[in-house]
Amino acid sequence: MIVALSGGIGGAKLALGLSKVLPPSGLLVVANTGDDFEHHGLTICPDIDTLTYTLAGLDNPVLGWGRADETWSFMETLAALGGEDWFRLGDRDLALHVLRTQRLRGGETLSAVTDDIRRRLGIGPRILPMSDDPVRTRIRSDAGWIDFQDWFVRQRAAPVVRALDFAGAGRARPQPEVLAALRAGPRAVVICPSNPFISIEPILAVPGMREAIAGCGAPVVAVSPIIAGQAVKGPTAKMFSELGVTPSAAAVAARYGDLLTGYVMEEGDDASGIAPRVFRARTLMQTLDDKIALARAVLTAADALR
Amino acid sequence: MIVALSGGIGGAKLALGLSKVLPPSGLLVVANTGDDFEHHGLTICPDIDTLTYTLAGLDNPVLGWGRADETWSFMETLAALGGEDWFRLGDRDLALHVLRTQRLRGGETLSAVTDDIRRRLGIGPRILPMSDDPVRTRIRSDAGWIDFQDWFVRQRAAPVVRALDFAGAGRARPQPEVLAALRAGPRAVVICPSNPFISIEPILAVPGMREAIAGCGAPVVAVSPIIAGQAVKGPTAKMFSELGVTPSAAAVAARYGDLLTGYVMEEGDDASGIAPRVFRARTLMQTLDDKIALARAVLTAADALR
Repeated sequence: MIVALSGGIGGAKLALGLSKVLPPSGLLVVANTGDDFEHHGLTICPDIDTLTYTLAGLDNPVLGWGRADETWSFMETLAALGGEDWFRLGDRDLALHVLRTQRLRGGETLSAVTDDIRRRLGIGPRILPMSDDPVRTRIRSDAGWIDFQDWFVRQRAAPVVRALDFAGAGRARPQPEVLAALRAGPRAVVICPSNPFISIEPILAVPGMREAIAGCGAPVVAVSPIIAGQAVKGPTAKMFSELGVTPSAAAVAARYGDLLTGYVMEEGDDASGIAPRVFRARTLMQTLDDKIALARAVLTAADALR
Repeated sequence: MIVALSGGIGGAKLALGLSKVLPPSGLLVVANTGDDFEHHGLTICPDIDTLTYTLAGLDNPVLGWGRADETWSFMETLAALGGEDWFRLGDRDLALHVLRTQRLRGGETLSAVTDDIRRRLGIGPRILPMSDDPVRTRIRSDAGWIDFQDWFVRQRAAPVVRALDFAGAGRARPQPEVLAALRAGPRAVVICPSNPFISIEPILAVPGMREAIAGCGAPVVAVSPIIAGQAVKGPTAKMFSELGVTPSAAAVAARYGDLLTGYVMEEGDDASGIAPRVFRARTLMQTLDDKIALARAVLTAADALR
């Protein structure tokens, strides 16, 4: 079993690659839920949904988020009625949020709803939230603390990041099947090329999760989301700079510290000072072949560490 | 001021006619909320919405419900994810339900939300619910009590109707501005050509509403929803038959009893035994001109009774 920790788009690309080279029972994807939020009375889980749509082949490659073949009648009409329209929800995407919200209110866990939707969409590998308890990432900027999606989407990640907080993480229980998979001795734990601050660290902040990974006896291999000092997508490099660290593959590895036993990074990037064993690969995933090749490289690295 | 009591499609047609011949401040439409229900975690108000869409010119003349220029991506996707799809919600229509539900949860009254949406859609006359407290029509059939929309939409009004109940009506308070309009001495109260059992009687069941209408000092004029023994649309005739009464214009007038001072019915229909003064008109509303002509006929009848 490969246990892969993932945020949204970058992580989902590698998860898709892994899903193509592993049997369905050989991959468990653990999704960050720190990005989740309540909006229009709906519980929205952006990273779970990006993983779900990507693994189902329903992702929207033009937008980089949401669903393919999307329509926008709901959002257009909501705006005309005076509703908030800064977080765009497509008509098809909305069905998932409405269904999930109703089932969560009915007492089902986020894990159960996520797993049911995964099966209905014909996805083989399991996708599970890091916790069924709510964890909500907040950003402290010069104007004070703001909710993550407010910062990320409404304010287009513009406010300078001074600090991060994962509200609720202290009381959150790790998802039990994730813990069980780690305790059962996985083939490897893969930390996908996601933003460390807002995608991976919320997962590691769930009490017991980091310890379970460190103690699982398997290689822990991260893939750098930074190539030549730049993030492929999103605010990773900006956040490093604003927190006083020059963005680099090495800086990401340093964030994960002694959790890592292996690190996969782009050919040519500076590996000096990186503690875990370094493996080189083409980490930019543009085509499906890129994703599969990187997945194979990660598995090869992990197996070399066993 | 004309105070018009209305259910869905038939009532909305006359309300539209009235809105074309009265100044905006001269018409207050009181909507039945007995058809309202909670579905997919949303509060859906079919009669308010039919009135709103009709008066805004946004109604869907092909379906006879919902919005024009509608798309159906949400419903298609919801069904694919295993959600209930027996009550069809268009993508544009959904925006209203989501916005309303969120604002009701935030503590606003149904009146306030309805009025805000009315203004945003450029509708002149006010549309107000009969009450801001929930009233829910239930139908007793041979299999027991069922919720109205379950009977009406899911079961296509097929189960035989043995009795009706307006759950919550006993505790519901009449909408204050409706009461105020009645106390201020309106020009007339118009009971639109809606189903008496499920559209008008829920309004009259709100404690104080019938008394306020009877005591307002103005003519109370109903328009028959039955023409030649048949309902123009919907289960009105079926319900009369199943409750042991031959459907007719006279049977509708008898349901309203001494509340009526005038009754507008189709030329040629049998008026024998009808207690209030009878006025003849073309009551089938197919074109906008039909709606306007009937509105004028109703106002002429009301003024003749003053």
